[in-house]
Amino acid sequence: MSGLVLAVDIGGTKFAVALVDPDGNVRAARRGATPPRGDAQTLWKALGELIDSLLDGAVADGVAGGTAGGVVDGVGIGCGGPMTWPEGVVSPLNMPGWRGFPLRARLAERFPGVPVRVHNDAVCLAVAEHWLGAGRGSANMLGMVVSTGVGGGLILGGRLVDGGSGNAGHIGHVVVDPDGPACGCGGRGCLEAIARGPGLAAWAVEQGWQPGAAGPPAVAPVPSGDAWASGGEAAGPGAGAAYVEATAASGRQLALDAGAGDPTALAAMDRAGRALGLAIASATNLCDLDVVTIGGGLSQAGPLLFEPLEAALREHTRLEFARRVRVVPASLGQEAGLAGAAALILAADRYRSH
Amino acid sequence: MSGLVLAVDIGGTKFAVALVDPDGNVRAARRGATPPRGDAQTLWKALGELIDSLLDGAVADGVAGGTAGGVVDGVGIGCGGPMTWPEGVVSPLNMPGWRGFPLRARLAERFPGVPVRVHNDAVCLAVAEHWLGAGRGSANMLGMVVSTGVGGGLILGGRLVDGGSGNAGHIGHVVVDPDGPACGCGGRGCLEAIARGPGLAAWAVEQGWQPGAAGPPAVAPVPSGDAWASGGEAAGPGAGAAYVEATAASGRQLALDAGAGDPTALAAMDRAGRALGLAIASATNLCDLDVVTIGGGLSQAGPLLFEPLEAALREHTRLEFARRVRVVPASLGQEAGLAGAAALILAADRYRSH
Repeated sequence: MSGLVLAVDIGGTKFAVALVDPDGNVRAARRGATPPRGDAQTLWKALGELIDSLLDGAVADGVAGGTAGGVVDGVGIGCGGPMTWPEGVVSPLNMPGWRGFPLRARLAERFPGVPVRVHNDAVCLAVAEHWLGAGRGSANMLGMVVSTGVGGGLILGGRLVDGGSGNAGHIGHVVVDPDGPACGCGGRGCLEAIARGPGLAAWAVEQGWQPGAAGPPAVAPVPSGDAWASGGEAAGPGAGAAYVEATAASGRQLALDAGAGDPTALAAMDRAGRALGLAIASATNLCDLDVVTIGGGLSQAGPLLFEPLEAALREHTRLEFARRVRVVPASLGQEAGLAGAAALILAADRYRSH
Repeated sequence: MSGLVLAVDIGGTKFAVALVDPDGNVRAARRGATPPRGDAQTLWKALGELIDSLLDGAVADGVAGGTAGGVVDGVGIGCGGPMTWPEGVVSPLNMPGWRGFPLRARLAERFPGVPVRVHNDAVCLAVAEHWLGAGRGSANMLGMVVSTGVGGGLILGGRLVDGGSGNAGHIGHVVVDPDGPACGCGGRGCLEAIARGPGLAAWAVEQGWQPGAAGPPAVAPVPSGDAWASGGEAAGPGAGAAYVEATAASGRQLALDAGAGDPTALAAMDRAGRALGLAIASATNLCDLDVVTIGGGLSQAGPLLFEPLEAALREHTRLEFARRVRVVPASLGQEAGLAGAAALILAADRYRSH
């Protein structure tokens, strides 16, 4: 036993693997691009090579306490949905090469004799924020990610809630406008249909938004990285063929233009903020939440997003108990997905209900 | 130890007390009208006399195994909210005589040395349906009551969810129409604002409904008792001054008229059913539910309510995991509130998180 667990974060654009210690520190990590259009075996081979590289490097660097490569106390995996759970047969929407791929079983063969657990990537991000981030110390938390999709994870009574099929936390499919736009899930008026980056950008274009026309931003609400698309790539299980690829840039541009004062871009931020506030209000009333964390690029838009969010939230949380809820930006960065995956093993008392 | 617990069900129109055995059977019970406009001491005295009568009678009848009166293994209490929890300082909306009344502490003084626990009456009804009723065997359940208010309780992972302040389960304040009618909670468009009996009847009157004008019902969708108002009197913590007293009759009449074919009354049932379906869809997506039970008078309206409910629910639960949810009428009768209160003691492994 090395005292370390292997964390695996599977996304449509990148694979990340790490060795994580019991305090949640990433002791060594490797990242690699997801093979584009890779078939099942190509994807699995790429992941295997990344893990081998991590473990070999860790042994060489003495990170794993000088023990032989491959000795870990367990394997935690975050992966885009949908998946069967807890079996971990995955079919990530944005990775067509894996349809019904037995990811958990394959990793269990590779790492025999230790626990191997998988959960939705958005759930892992929520777990990370609860374990180490902006939700630490709260017993009742919704951890959200607003990106190309809108996903989340739910911690109640200090423990991760899985729901009947591992899908609890799907805040993106709380209905905020029964007559609203069609959603990738096949429904209508879901939070995700309105607030996910591509949907919001599409709405703004319909309203006449011309990306970049507002000129350089008066303030810089969003970092120049790919923050909009980061944070778990939570194109949730609701996403379907209607999902537009590679529109993260237009979402980011929208936030930039809002920062520069473009009225249509500002209206889009208001629209997203209000939808988020409504969905959070419903979740707070139903689950008696203490805190909601919001990660993904949209959370970096600052007051342009959080002010309309707070306004809608406070209009719809009027019961005394519900007024106490706090909505805060997620505080962990790039490594949140890895930390959350590791917590499935390292803090199983709280994050493993099954 | 008698093997029995004392269950107490406190409502605005009646007090009920019972001795309940470990299988949930009510072995002896007493009911009494809540003293109208009673002050704190009058209410407490009436409850005490009801309990004395129950225990004396049980001893006389040999129900308590011939042991001395007053020997119970614990006390479980369901009471209308709001309350502090788990302290059980209660301020039931429909009992102005109790404002900040230390109900739990008073009963703990009366029954020293045994556990005394209190929860929201709607939570107790959900617990009862999970323990003994329509939700038995499910791990992830929302138990609802639709009456003069709309309340509920949430069981996830096989355990009662309390939330941060004992208020989880407030499905009545999930927002189903952001621009909808004002709610007693101070918000707008809550499920309760639309689907509670008095609200629904008021809407129908606005649409020109003339109570009883449809003549005798072609079918009898609602029993002639006070079913509409029964089921925990869940005028939830959201209810405020806007709540109309004693409008249960008009709600019942509405259901009867709908059964007789009155188009406005039918439209009202459709309106309530759709609002319920929407809120249940959001709760299902968020919490990954297996089953939802609906009690209170409205659940007895049958297909007139459940058909529009199912239609709206299925429109908004399109993700594969969410499609499995079943919505069923609550199956327990008058004694559900007592059974749920008893379960706080008798099945504490599942229904006592705190």
